Amino acid sequence: MNIIEIIEKKRDKQKLTKAEINYFISDYVNGKIKDYQASSLLMAICLNGMDEEETTILTEAMLNSGDIFDLSKIEGIKVDKHSTGGVGDKVTLIVAPLLASLGLKVAKMSGRGLGHTGGTIDKLEGIPGFQTSLTKDQFINQVNDISLAIIGQTGNLVPADKMLYALRDVTGTVSSIPLIASSIMSKKLASGAEVIILDVKVGKGAFMKTVKEAIELANLMVKIGTNIGRKVMAILTSMDSPLGNSVGNNLEVNEALLTLKGKGAIDLTSISIEISAHLAYLAGKFESLKMARQKVEENLKNGKALNSFIQMIKAQGGNLTKDLEKASKHYSINAKIKGVVSAIDSLKIGQAAMLLGAGRMTKEDEIDYKAGIIINKKPGDKIEVNENLCDLYTNKELNDEVKELVESAFHIAKSYKEEPLIIKIIES
Amino acid sequence: MNIIEIIEKKRDKQKLTKAEINYFISDYVNGKIKDYQASSLLMAICLNGMDEEETTILTEAMLNSGDIFDLSKIEGIKVDKHSTGGVGDKVTLIVAPLLASLGLKVAKMSGRGLGHTGGTIDKLEGIPGFQTSLTKDQFINQVNDISLAIIGQTGNLVPADKMLYALRDVTGTVSSIPLIASSIMSKKLASGAEVIILDVKVGKGAFMKTVKEAIELANLMVKIGTNIGRKVMAILTSMDSPLGNSVGNNLEVNEALLTLKGKGAIDLTSISIEISAHLAYLAGKFESLKMARQKVEENLKNGKALNSFIQMIKAQGGNLTKDLEKASKHYSINAKIKGVVSAIDSLKIGQAAMLLGAGRMTKEDEIDYKAGIIINKKPGDKIEVNENLCDLYTNKELNDEVKELVESAFHIAKSYKEEPLIIKIIES
Repeated sequence: MNIIEIIEKKRDKQKLTKAEINYFISDYVNGKIKDYQASSLLMAICLNGMDEEETTILTEAMLNSGDIFDLSKIEGIKVDKHSTGGVGDKVTLIVAPLLASLGLKVAKMSGRGLGHTGGTIDKLEGIPGFQTSLTKDQFINQVNDISLAIIGQTGNLVPADKMLYALRDVTGTVSSIPLIASSIMSKKLASGAEVIILDVKVGKGAFMKTVKEAIELANLMVKIGTNIGRKVMAILTSMDSPLGNSVGNNLEVNEALLTLKGKGAIDLTSISIEISAHLAYLAGKFESLKMARQKVEENLKNGKALNSFIQMIKAQGGNLTKDLEKASKHYSINAKIKGVVSAIDSLKIGQAAMLLGAGRMTKEDEIDYKAGIIINKKPGDKIEVNENLCDLYTNKELNDEVKELVESAFHIAKSYKEEPLIIKIIES
Repeated sequence: MNIIEIIEKKRDKQKLTKAEINYFISDYVNGKIKDYQASSLLMAICLNGMDEEETTILTEAMLNSGDIFDLSKIEGIKVDKHSTGGVGDKVTLIVAPLLASLGLKVAKMSGRGLGHTGGTIDKLEGIPGFQTSLTKDQFINQVNDISLAIIGQTGNLVPADKMLYALRDVTGTVSSIPLIASSIMSKKLASGAEVIILDVKVGKGAFMKTVKEAIELANLMVKIGTNIGRKVMAILTSMDSPLGNSVGNNLEVNEALLTLKGKGAIDLTSISIEISAHLAYLAGKFESLKMARQKVEENLKNGKALNSFIQMIKAQGGNLTKDLEKASKHYSINAKIKGVVSAIDSLKIGQAAMLLGAGRMTKEDEIDYKAGIIINKKPGDKIEVNENLCDLYTNKELNDEVKELVESAFHIAKSYKEEPLIIKIIES
């Protein structure tokens, strides 16, 4: 087999065989296929596509390029949830303990944030003492004990994805549905869960800007997961406006706690309930989706989900007796005109939070857990001149760029049209 | 400017600006743009194309990446001829002295062969004592003295093409009309001639397999050359069967001499006359193509062209008093059935000659000047069982693979349909 012939086949719009895809991944990981050959093939895939079968094979080849996390020592149904990344997206912090409170097993590996979107591990690391790296035995034992553990990625999972993603990032080959799907699914499947829900974010602050491409990605990911023998579904949710009322690591942990106490923002609470209910039903825990939803709502009210979260924090060494700290400098952004908030541009809010210190521009940047934005007016809220829209928290000097970015994120109009938060459910 | 954005533009089917193309070439040559980024862009160009304006800009950027050969010290009209490469293609050895005998100035840089096609420099190097590298002054002085010099490529001409070609060769990005056109034209324009004819070979043994793609390439190259201020035309000629009666370096020099004595094969003689006449007419040397053709035929008959060739051999230190040597081992290939030769597969003949030692599989291979094939029956010739089709010359042991390859190259049928040798003339 010869990489040049494989590149030429894809260039000429031909379907690649299993042997060819496996050869590409194994010889790229072992260094026999060069970066300049891989990038040429990636661009050919970007432009000529891959069908479901090719993408499934690619995902499996990537999955098999490293270790696959073995969760067999965990009793019960192992579930997982993945988000394609949003602004103010602290859903994992609510859904994971909710699922654990239902008796499902959540042995979760999460990632860090990059750019304008946050990562669960960064959020948890703001909790004093919280350990995001456990040994494999500690991780397994904790899930057997309290049904829940969230750690950073560990072991040599999917080295092919690490290499390919770094290459795609610098060669203009990120935006390909089959490449995105295989990247997400290889990582998700490597972490070992049997039942998985994918929260595919759509809109301004999301990676997928249109419903059409989000549906395409979600369909493909569900098919890949199903082909590889897992139960997988996807939920398309809106990321036009930030989720909930806070953006930034400590602020989002505080908001997650509030939500687990049943006092969260409507959008965040409702997405968390839907994701939990759908996943619990898919896992076979309930006879109907309605019953699953009732039990999820119950565990949010009766404190069982909150209790799961607090158990996890304690088990992983964390100390969370009061709200996490905000940054020392605080600025209010007030409305200049009167009206109703018709939209909040989540991309701009995400970028502003990053500039305040809450996110990383490059992988090497350090983040400031205490920095972020608290949104006090959400789409649909009426606003008077000079009334507070949001508060910025930072340890840096606030520059005009950030202020203007945040101001321009708030669209104030005469009327507001509500858009659905949950756009579509995709099942296999 | 940012290479990732440039790659994304071409990926998204957008036209690149002059500034973007210049940035790509200059930063690739100076190493700031990496091979894996260049190959991704090259694949995007392969699949999404470049229009005439982009390709002209790319050609100029490549041309300006190194030295441009200055022929201004040569008096008279500087002409050049380029072939896209064929099997048995010794046309330069006939056309160059023919043009010199007409008073045109031929200051020619030629290349080496790779794969199944030969190169003029390899052919000349089989002549004892012949120097293919001259100083710039020697080269210019020789052309001023005897109107003709042929040397290997010298100086730092088009480094961008050397880098890009090496990369294209290993990344499946060779077969792109704009990339082929800019590669050929940047090199041709860098060698400084004012009037250029491009012999675009079409057919089995050629790089362009179909007339359609050959016309597209020829049109684009003529437009690029014209846009950059040279007089350029193209002639599409058939490369379904090998040209003339010999394939292999020394054998082809011998055939060129025979042709310059007016005793050459019909196909080779007629192509040489047409190319010379068109170029001489394009250069403004004659009032009509007909007059040009008459004078070309005259100089082939009266020995003036032969004399130019012999003058050049002497001037460059060569000693050509008798036919060049053939390899020691000789094998006849005879017909197994009776009929008429309907075709000779030039790709197979070229590959067989390479295996006999006449060509290089990789750039590092040494060639055997004495090896090759003499074709004794051409398309249209009748043949009896056991009658000789061709003779193989080699210093290696002849293996069955080569024998079978040559046998299978000869198609013997009941009838023969003559196809035109000159398919199309393309003028600006």
